[in-house]
Formats: sequence, structure tokens, C-alpha cells
Amino acid sequence: MVKVAIAGITGFTGIELLRYLSCHEKVEFVCFISKSRNGEKLSSAGLFVDSSLDRILEPPETELLSEAEVLFSCLPHGESAGFIKTALSKNPSLKVIDLSADFRFTTSELYEEIYKVEHPFKENYPEAVYGLPELNRKKVKQTTIVANPGCYPTAFFLSAFPILKEDLSDQFIYDAKSGISGAGRSPAHTKIYAELEESVYPYSVFTHRHQYEMEHQSANLIGREIKISFMPQVIPASRGILGVLYANLKKKVKYQDLRHIFLKYYSEEPFIHLLKEGDSPKTKMVRGTNNCLLQVYFDSTNNLAAVVSAIDNLGKGASGQAVQNFNLMMGFKEEESLISMPLYP
Amino acid sequence: MVKVAIAGITGFTGIELLRYLSCHEKVEFVCFISKSRNGEKLSSAGLFVDSSLDRILEPPETELLSEAEVLFSCLPHGESAGFIKTALSKNPSLKVIDLSADFRFTTSELYEEIYKVEHPFKENYPEAVYGLPELNRKKVKQTTIVANPGCYPTAFFLSAFPILKEDLSDQFIYDAKSGISGAGRSPAHTKIYAELEESVYPYSVFTHRHQYEMEHQSANLIGREIKISFMPQVIPASRGILGVLYANLKKKVKYQDLRHIFLKYYSEEPFIHLLKEGDSPKTKMVRGTNNCLLQVYFDSTNNLAAVVSAIDNLGKGASGQAVQNFNLMMGFKEEESLISMPLYP
Amino acid sequence: MVKVAIAGITGFTGIELLRYLSCHEKVEFVCFISKSRNGEKLSSAGLFVDSSLDRILEPPETELLSEAEVLFSCLPHGESAGFIKTALSKNPSLKVIDLSADFRFTTSELYEEIYKVEHPFKENYPEAVYGLPELNRKKVKQTTIVANPGCYPTAFFLSAFPILKEDLSDQFIYDAKSGISGAGRSPAHTKIYAELEESVYPYSVFTHRHQYEMEHQSANLIGREIKISFMPQVIPASRGILGVLYANLKKKVKYQDLRHIFLKYYSEEPFIHLLKEGDSPKTKMVRGTNNCLLQVYFDSTNNLAAVVSAIDNLGKGASGQAVQNFNLMMGFKEEESLISMPLYP
Amino acid sequence: MVKVAIAGITGFTGIELLRYLSCHEKVEFVCFISKSRNGEKLSSAGLFVDSSLDRILEPPETELLSEAEVLFSCLPHGESAGFIKTALSKNPSLKVIDLSADFRFTTSELYEEIYKVEHPFKENYPEAVYGLPELNRKKVKQTTIVANPGCYPTAFFLSAFPILKEDLSDQFIYDAKSGISGAGRSPAHTKIYAELEESVYPYSVFTHRHQYEMEHQSANLIGREIKISFMPQVIPASRGILGVLYANLKKKVKYQDLRHIFLKYYSEEPFIHLLKEGDSPKTKMVRGTNNCLLQVYFDSTNNLAAVVSAIDNLGKGASGQAVQNFNLMMGFKEEESLISMPLYP
Repeated sequence: MVKVAIAGITGFTGIELLRYLSCHEKVEFVCFISKSRNGEKLSSAGLFVDSSLDRILEPPETELLSEAEVLFSCLPHGESAGFIKTALSKNPSLKVIDLSADFRFTTSELYEEIYKVEHPFKENYPEAVYGLPELNRKKVKQTTIVANPGCYPTAFFLSAFPILKEDLSDQFIYDAKSGISGAGRSPAHTKIYAELEESVYPYSVFTHRHQYEMEHQSANLIGREIKISFMPQVIPASRGILGVLYANLKKKVKYQDLRHIFLKYYSEEPFIHLLKEGDSPKTKMVRGTNNCLLQVYFDSTNNLAAVVSAIDNLGKGASGQAVQNFNLMMGFKEEESLISMPLYP
Repeated sequence: MVKVAIAGITGFTGIELLRYLSCHEKVEFVCFISKSRNGEKLSSAGLFVDSSLDRILEPPETELLSEAEVLFSCLPHGESAGFIKTALSKNPSLKVIDLSADFRFTTSELYEEIYKVEHPFKENYPEAVYGLPELNRKKVKQTTIVANPGCYPTAFFLSAFPILKEDLSDQFIYDAKSGISGAGRSPAHTKIYAELEESVYPYSVFTHRHQYEMEHQSANLIGREIKISFMPQVIPASRGILGVLYANLKKKVKYQDLRHIFLKYYSEEPFIHLLKEGDSPKTKMVRGTNNCLLQVYFDSTNNLAAVVSAIDNLGKGASGQAVQNFNLMMGFKEEESLISMPLYP
Repeated sequence: MVKVAIAGITGFTGIELLRYLSCHEKVEFVCFISKSRNGEKLSSAGLFVDSSLDRILEPPETELLSEAEVLFSCLPHGESAGFIKTALSKNPSLKVIDLSADFRFTTSELYEEIYKVEHPFKENYPEAVYGLPELNRKKVKQTTIVANPGCYPTAFFLSAFPILKEDLSDQFIYDAKSGISGAGRSPAHTKIYAELEESVYPYSVFTHRHQYEMEHQSANLIGREIKISFMPQVIPASRGILGVLYANLKKKVKYQDLRHIFLKYYSEEPFIHLLKEGDSPKTKMVRGTNNCLLQVYFDSTNNLAAVVSAIDNLGKGASGQAVQNFNLMMGFKEEESLISMPLYP
Repeated sequence: MVKVAIAGITGFTGIELLRYLSCHEKVEFVCFISKSRNGEKLSSAGLFVDSSLDRILEPPETELLSEAEVLFSCLPHGESAGFIKTALSKNPSLKVIDLSADFRFTTSELYEEIYKVEHPFKENYPEAVYGLPELNRKKVKQTTIVANPGCYPTAFFLSAFPILKEDLSDQFIYDAKSGISGAGRSPAHTKIYAELEESVYPYSVFTHRHQYEMEHQSANLIGREIKISFMPQVIPASRGILGVLYANLKKKVKYQDLRHIFLKYYSEEPFIHLLKEGDSPKTKMVRGTNNCLLQVYFDSTNNLAAVVSAIDNLGKGASGQAVQNFNLMMGFKEEESLISMPLYP
């Protein structure tokens, strides 16, 4: 059994992480940490959990962290790195999976430029591994600190990877729609039900932080400079990202070539599924799972490829992927606790 | 043309009031007042409005109030009465329609007991008229200050009125479900989309403030002491109240007797509609309107009547009714600007 | 390993059953049966399932049934019993869990009276056990054929059971709201998104078939004749039932007495949870689980108790409960494959 | 007063048309026609309408058509043209606004190629005018038969028109998301609530019929051959289209140049509104209106323009635009009955 601590457990990624890990046969919980609700029980956060999980929440400075072998941090960006710094100072052998953005850039300077805040762990900035197993499995297995990718970048890379590897394009339009849980659980005007119901709209057009994460990690992971025009949109849903990647191809291809390329890279992947021709990826088909469904379209007149992906932003886009990284880091079966059917309907 | 001011215009009842009044042929706007956004344009509140309506919002202390003939206050309870007090001191001939709870009780003491705040206008507490035209039309026509009823009490009284008048019962279970816009526009944890979607639940069971409003106004309006067990519930919808009133009847009746009683009281009412047998009131059927749809059910084994009502909580439950009161106070046609089909779907 | 067949697998209860059973460590699937889609793969029904589950669907007359030890039937009422009759004639040792209404009445005559169709298995009408473990666990363990209860009756009995056992009342108002998946997956005008969104309304008021199921099974299970006035309502949600049971009590009690009674009957139950005072059952809190959350309210002025229950109509209200019955029939741990956190949000 | 007939009134575009026209001061209804429900009242179609509108529905062959001056046809494509043919044979002076696709192509042959059905009015195929007033106002004013544009093409042309006129691009990616009411009111598996809720997905990718309508009408209206890669998507909403048009520009421009171009073409248009910089078009902001909100984005690195549009698919995308065309054909004020605030929330 691995002793696990979860910080930021009352947010959406924390709750979802607990849902996965509570079914994991190799996990034993050391402590649940919450900045805002420590001293209260987990159920005080508006959940129902079985009494075995309904523990008293600990403060970030809890001594119990010294007993943990693995720490998942679901704290917000700008807070997570500082907390992890302290935790590591107390318990240097701790393995860390950070679901925030704090270690997604190779240098703290880049992070500071994009997030406009001081990085709380810039001295001895740790070399975190970008935890996208399908592109980076080997490094994930060997690291002690994983930067869990953003939800949009996850869907983006899974769509673009075969195209990049085959050098078919390096300029993309990425039009992605997300459910609102991606914006977190804290109350805000734009998140309230009566505002979002029956509404869809774009935000942070061509300037979203995840655009820089995609461009940066493409150079870092695949060694290719790329340019993305990223159009994120909110849809009236709690979960799910539908990404559409448009790429004008540099070479002439046929539709079946495109399918073959995707099969080449993904046919052995447990969570990545190219649908059969004619089937559409639907976000509901992946709800509550770590799956990514893909479909490839081709407009031969324009030599334009479109890759459509569906993920659960809290699954493959966050907590599911965190567990996948955990399994790899610990040498467990990669699918452990991650194989289940979606909740449908 | 009547010169109208609206205070609290950026909330849901304010926006809906503007939607009705902007089509009203006898209305000219003097000013739009907002505590939080004054100095900005109306569209800054996340709306799109035609440029003719996109005015600079005024502070509560605006001198423009002295030019107004009628003031609608959509400010929150506890703030509205104090604002109205000041407005009346500047402009004593102002007619006022208050959509908050501040004047719904006959005395300020009662209000303070129930709302647990000091009443900001308790000296010279004005004799407001409870603006439920179907029960109180004559007084509404003659008053200069209307307390616009709560959304739940509106649906309650329209369901219970014939039963009370005919002395069929004076003890009720009232099980009502409301869309979330009834809770206002300010952000709160329980209002966010990802929490409310796919959820229904009760709140303030047997202790909701509107229960006291119903009991109090029944005594005041109809001269009958009644007892209500009120079970309010939230549904995943923006608008709409479906009320179910259960009454064990004191006399033996037949189903058709019940229908006749409802027709007796409502057949001349422009906004109250008893559906034909077999048809169900649906909240979507009244969305964006001032209508109240009713259906009567009877379980003869138990001599139990159930009256189901559907209203739009922002229509007949708030802003629509406010306009209806306005029309009555000003001697206009009662339906002016209030006749339109619901938005369907 | 137990060899299991599922019939009617492409409907909502079939899909949900598969979701539970695919995580069940003691289950091996023999065949998936579909009347409408046999010959096609399971994924043709608009789902995504891992390739290991994506089998060719079999027709109802498949010979594979002779290899099964347990059959779950998710076929519609009126079809299920006939299918089961044929299956049992081929394989008399088959254990059966029927999720339809076909065996929920003690006699086929009663069924025919209420469902207005001829019962397809009236000769040698089998003595099915009503599969509500909390009220009927002993018999479920011993039977070979279970009639899985209706969704509304499940929530009703879990709310009423302690009250009935303590002889506090035998006349009830039952006001329950359900998500639309309870109406099944076949297309119909009233189920389409644009009609249901933003709408709530009653249907089959005081005449719903489940009302008779409740009254009949109360006499059968608890030996008490009761009278229920049942007001079912549809809410704009896919899943979830919120039931409110109103009971005028025959004796004077105190609120804490009521809580103690519920604790007395349910404190050992793995799936039934009385929430702590002040907490509201929310349907979202049970989504995707076999849990039933309860809260008790009391209006002392009227000596009126209200019991609020939240279940997932496809969980404890159908497929989850079917698995619970299966576990009991097979002598497995009752919670096997049923313990997981809800999908939240 | 103009005597108006509406055919296909029980569908979503028919209901919405009635909502607009029932507030139109110059309209008098001659008859409401329904193929499926004739002989019944309008309210039988699951609506609530005031008694003055709750007429008996007429069959398509009704003699009352001979009294009408204007006919709106909301019948499905493939049926509408045949019905109009018959109506015109009876009443040759009838003016017609057809909301179906039947007259959106210049020749019946093109229609047949795309819609794969025989055109029911190919002899003497009438020269209908494509009713997009902002591009074609002059011809609309002079015609007696209008082909009301498709919902997606409306949003597309309003986004692309300034770019086409200024010869900035002639190749487009059009990524548009629509609420489900665009698919009509008849029941279908993919439209049911439990399937669509929490789901977003593409359909008819690069092959949607509206793609050909856009390409065809661009040549016809603007005299430019264009190529569109059209990616339509369904979102979990009843109403609203959010269109995103991507265009690689042929010339170097600056962001302000783009804004100026849009202002140049639209500043006098009553229904087309370029939002101020930083504001996002949201579908909820146009719900129930004939407005089209636009925003322009520019990614200078790639010289890529993105034009985002929000319309109500039943408003500017169908029935609102039909009324706008009607007003133009009759010489009325173009905004008559079309100016109102959206239903918000």
C-alpha cells in the first residue's frame, strides 16, 4: 500500500481524484488537506461520502505529510508550488503530482511571464516532468515530480501529436469548448447557473494561458516550434471538452493516411481511442472516465485536416490523468482504478 | 407618458422589469439606479441592450429621482426600504412599487422578527398595499406604495384563494419547486452551474420566510388564520415555480365542484388560467409571461385536493406582477405590455 | 465466477447495469441480448465501450442463455415476463432478476388490472420476491427470481418503512420528482431536450401505476393496508429522484424520536444514510451510486412528518438495486461493485 | 391590416413566428395550418396560448388560404414547396415567405442534388429571393416569394460579408455550435434530454447541406466563389448558434482595420451589433430576439481573423428573420414587432 496525501481536496479536481483513488487497491490515505475547511469533515464541503472517507480535513502545514509517500496537490496555481516547497522541505523523499499550472513550464521565468505572479518555488526550481503519458511515458516513470497538464493542452496534444510527429503541419487553429467545472468550484458571476444555462461564448481568445503551455511544451516535448490560434469557449455543461484541431497540411495526403497515422501512434494506448469512421466523439461518452475519443476528418479541397477529441476535463484532463501518472511513477498497472464505463446518461 | 425610475436594475428582477417596461407604450425612463455599478453603462452588467437603453447607471442618491413619478425598487430586502425612505423624502409625491420583502408585513416589528434585521423605515412605517391584484385589486388601484408579493406566496395565494374563500380548508401542505433565479444574481456556492445541474433538493424546510408571509397575509387579506407546512425546493432551471398545494377538505366535495369554484373566482382574470382537465401546468408554458396556470386534482379516497400552479418567478412572481400593479395604480389597461406568448422552447 | 446474461442492454437500465457489473469481480458475461439491435455491436447503440465489452448483441432466443447462471432482464414491462418464461423453459436452473414491472404484483390478475395488458407468464405464475433488501433481505437471499422494485416505490418504502413499522401513520402524500431517464430511452415528444429544459410538471397524478405497487407491496411486505396520494413530477434532469413523503402522525412525537426511529431501522444498512440535522439530501449527491440519502423534518404545529429521500433512479431505483439483489442471491458481499463515490459534479 | 396564414404552426419555427406576429400591429390571422393536428386546437400541441390565439388548426388544403395576403410556410423541406405550389395555384396574388430549404437554391436541380429528393415545384420553379436583408434588402422589398435562409448560413454570411466585400479572403473554416431546436420538434433518439444533456459533438462534418447553401448563395449574392470547411456541432441548449468563422487573410491588416470594415457595413443595421472590444457574444444575450452580435478577433502572427457571431437560431436564424422579410415586403418599418430585450436569464 502506498501512503497518499491529497491537498485541495474540496475542489472539483480534488473530489474527482478521491473518487478514483478510493477505488485504487494500492492506496491508503494519510491525510486530506484543505486550506479553507481544515478542522471540518470532508462532508462539510457539500458532498456525501461514506463515513470511512469522511475525515477531518488537515491544514497545509499538517505534520501528517511526513508520513506520506505521494502527495497530490489540487491547490490553485500560485499556491500549489509554495505548499509543495514546504512539504518537500519536511519530507524530501515525497513524490509529488501537481495538478496546478505551477510546474508546467521549464523555467520559473516563463511561468511568471505568463501567469503574472511571482513563482513561489523559484529557487532550486525543480525539474518536473510534464505528465502526458502518451507523449512522455518514459520520463514520467522515472521522475519524482510530475506537472499534470492542463485540460485543454491534454486534448490538444492528443490531437496534434501524430500530425506533429509526421511533420504534416506546425500551425494550428484550436477551437475547444469546455464545461464550466474547468473554471473551478469557487463562486463567480460567470459560473452561476442562471447565467450559463442556454449560453455558449468564447473567452481569452488567442490569449489563453493554455495556448502558451501548448506552444512551450510542443517545443519541449517534441522539439518542434508551433503556432496555435486558440479559441476557448464555455458551454452549458459541468464536464467535458470537445476540441477541434484544424491543420492545413504541408503534404498531400488521403483520408486513410490520416487514420493510419493516428492508429500508428495510439493503437496500443489504453485510453486513446480512434472511433470508427462515421462515429462522432461526444463528451458524454467519456464522462467520469480517463478516455480520450478521437475522430479525424479531412477536407480534401483545402487539404485541411480536422481532429476532434472528447475528454472529461476532470478525467483525462485532470484527476484521471493524475492517477495515470501516479500508476506509472509507482510501477503499477497503468489502468489501475481507471477502467470503468462512463456514467451514461 | 409616465416618468419611471428603476433601482437595482442589474439584478434579475431589474432586468426583467426593464424587458417588460421597454415595451410599455406609456413609460418614459428617468433613470436606472445601481448601487454597485453606478457610473457604468447598463451593458457593463453582462447584458446586451440596444443603445437607446444603454444608459449610464445612477447612484441611489441621484437627483434624477425628483423627476420621477413612479419608482420601482429591485434592491435587496433590508436595503430597499431605506432607499425608498430617502427617495420619498426628496420627492413625496413619488409612487413606489417595492419588489423586496421590506413592506410585506403590516408592521415593521413583524418584519424584524422574521428577517432578523432592523427595519430601515420603521418610523412612519408606510401603509403599503400587498400587490396581489387578483385578491386585492381595489386597494392596489388606490395606493401610492405597493409591496410586491414574494414569488412563492404569489403562487400559493392563487392556488389557495378559492379554497379559503369557500372555507374548504385552512391547513395546507405547500410543496413548491423553484428555478434558481429566485435566489438572485449575486454569486454563491450553491448557485454555480456545476453544483446545481442534475440536482434537486429542499431548503429552509418549514422555516422559510415566505411561509410567514403567506400566513400573515392570509390573515390580513382574507381574514383567515391558516397554517402552512412549506417545503421549498430548488430545481436545475433558471426560471419557473411549480407549486403543489395539498389541502384536506373540511367538507365532502366532488371534483367538478372544485373546478367550478376555481372558475368562479378566476374566469374573468386575464392572467389566471385553469387548464382543461387532463392538461398539466408546465413551468415552460409560462416562461417570460405574467400568466399563472392552474390545475386541480382530487383524491376522493382521502378527500384531498391538490392544486398545481405554474408561474414564472420573475414574471407573475416578481417583475410581471410589478408591472400589473403599476398599470392598476396608474389607471392603465391591466394587461398593458404584459400580453405575449411564452418563449417556447 | 458467475455466468451472467443481460437482456435489454441498450436501454438506460441495461447500460447502467453493465457499468456496475463490469467492475464486479465475480461476474463473467455470457451474452448481451437486444431485441432491436441484435447482430450489431453494443457500441452501435450510441455508446463508447472498451473493446472487451463491445460484443455482438444476441437475439432474445439465443442459445447462449442455456450457459447462463443468472439473467438480468431490462426488457420493457409486458415483454420481460414472456422472455423470462422462454428462458426458464430452456434453462430451468437460471436465476432471474427482472427490472421490469412484470413480477411486482403477487398475482398476474392484479398486474393485468393495473397495466391493462395480458400477463405473458400467467400460467404457473412464479413466486417472485420483491427485491427491496432493506425490507426483504431474507427472502431475497433464498429466491431464484427477484422482481426488482420500481424507482418511485424504492424511495417511497425507504422513507415510509420506519413510520409504518412503528405504526405512526398509514396515510401518505407522496410528492416525488424524477429525472427523465426514468421514462426510458426510446424517443418521445415529451422527452426531447427542447421541451423538457427549463420545465417541471406533474403527470399521472393520483393514478400512477407505482402508486398501486406501493399500496400492494405495503400490504404484502409489512402487512399494513395504506393509502397513498402520489404526485409524480418530471424535472429537467437526466437522473435522480427526490421524494417527499408527508405523513400526519397518529401519535404525538418529538423530532428526535423521529430521528431515532430512522436510525433504529437503518444504522446497519450499507446504502441508507440519514443525514445529520440541517443537511439536505440532493440528488446529485447520489448520482451513479446505490445510496439513498434521507432527512426527516417535523412540523410540530400540525404533527406532520416529512421524509425527504434522494436516490439515483438508475442506481438504487433500478440497476444498482438489481446488483444488490444479485449479491444477496449469490451469497456475495452485499456491497460488491456498489461502493463508489458519486460523480460530482 | 395584412391577412396572414401560417402553415406548420406547431413546430418550433411556427410557434416562434406566432410569438413575434401576435405582437405585430399590422397583422390579422386568417388561419393556422397543421398537417398533423388539423381539426384540433393549437393548444393541443403542448402549448399554452391565450384563448384569442387558440384556434382550430386547418388542413393544408383549407379554402381559407384564398383569403390570405401573406403565407408563412414552416413546413419541412420537401413538403413546403409542394404546399406552396398548391396555395399559389388557388391564390396567385399570395406573397410567400418559406422558412424551409425548398427555394434556397437558384435551380431545382441544385436542390435535388443536395437534398436527394425530387423538388415538388420544379416546373415553373419560382424565382425566390434569398431573404437575408443585410445583404439583399433591395430584392426582398420587391419580391413576392422569399426563401428564408438557413440558421447556419445566416450567421455565416453576417460574419463573412464584410470580409468578402473587401476581398480579404475567400476560404473559410466555419465552426458553429447550435442548440437542438434547430433540429426541429419531432422526436428522435439524438434529441432526447438524457442523451444531449452534458454532451457536445460534431455532426455532418464538411458535408452539411448548409455548407452548400453558403457556397451557392455566396456566388449568387456576392458574386464570389468561396470554399468553406463547415464543422457543425450540437450543444446542450435549446436555442442559440455561436458561429466562429476563421479566415486567413490575403492582405496584411491591423485589428482596427477589421473593426472598421465591420462598422462600415453594419453601423446602420438595426439588428447587427459589433460589440465593443473585450466583450464576448453570448447566445443567451440574443435569446428570443432578432439580433446578431458580432465580435472580431485577430491573430497577427498568422494573419488570421476570427469572427464570432451569436444569433438565436429561431430568431435571426428563422422566424425573426422571416418577420423582418415580411416587414420589408409589405413596406412596414423593418423592426416592427422585432424590438424587444432578450429573455435573460
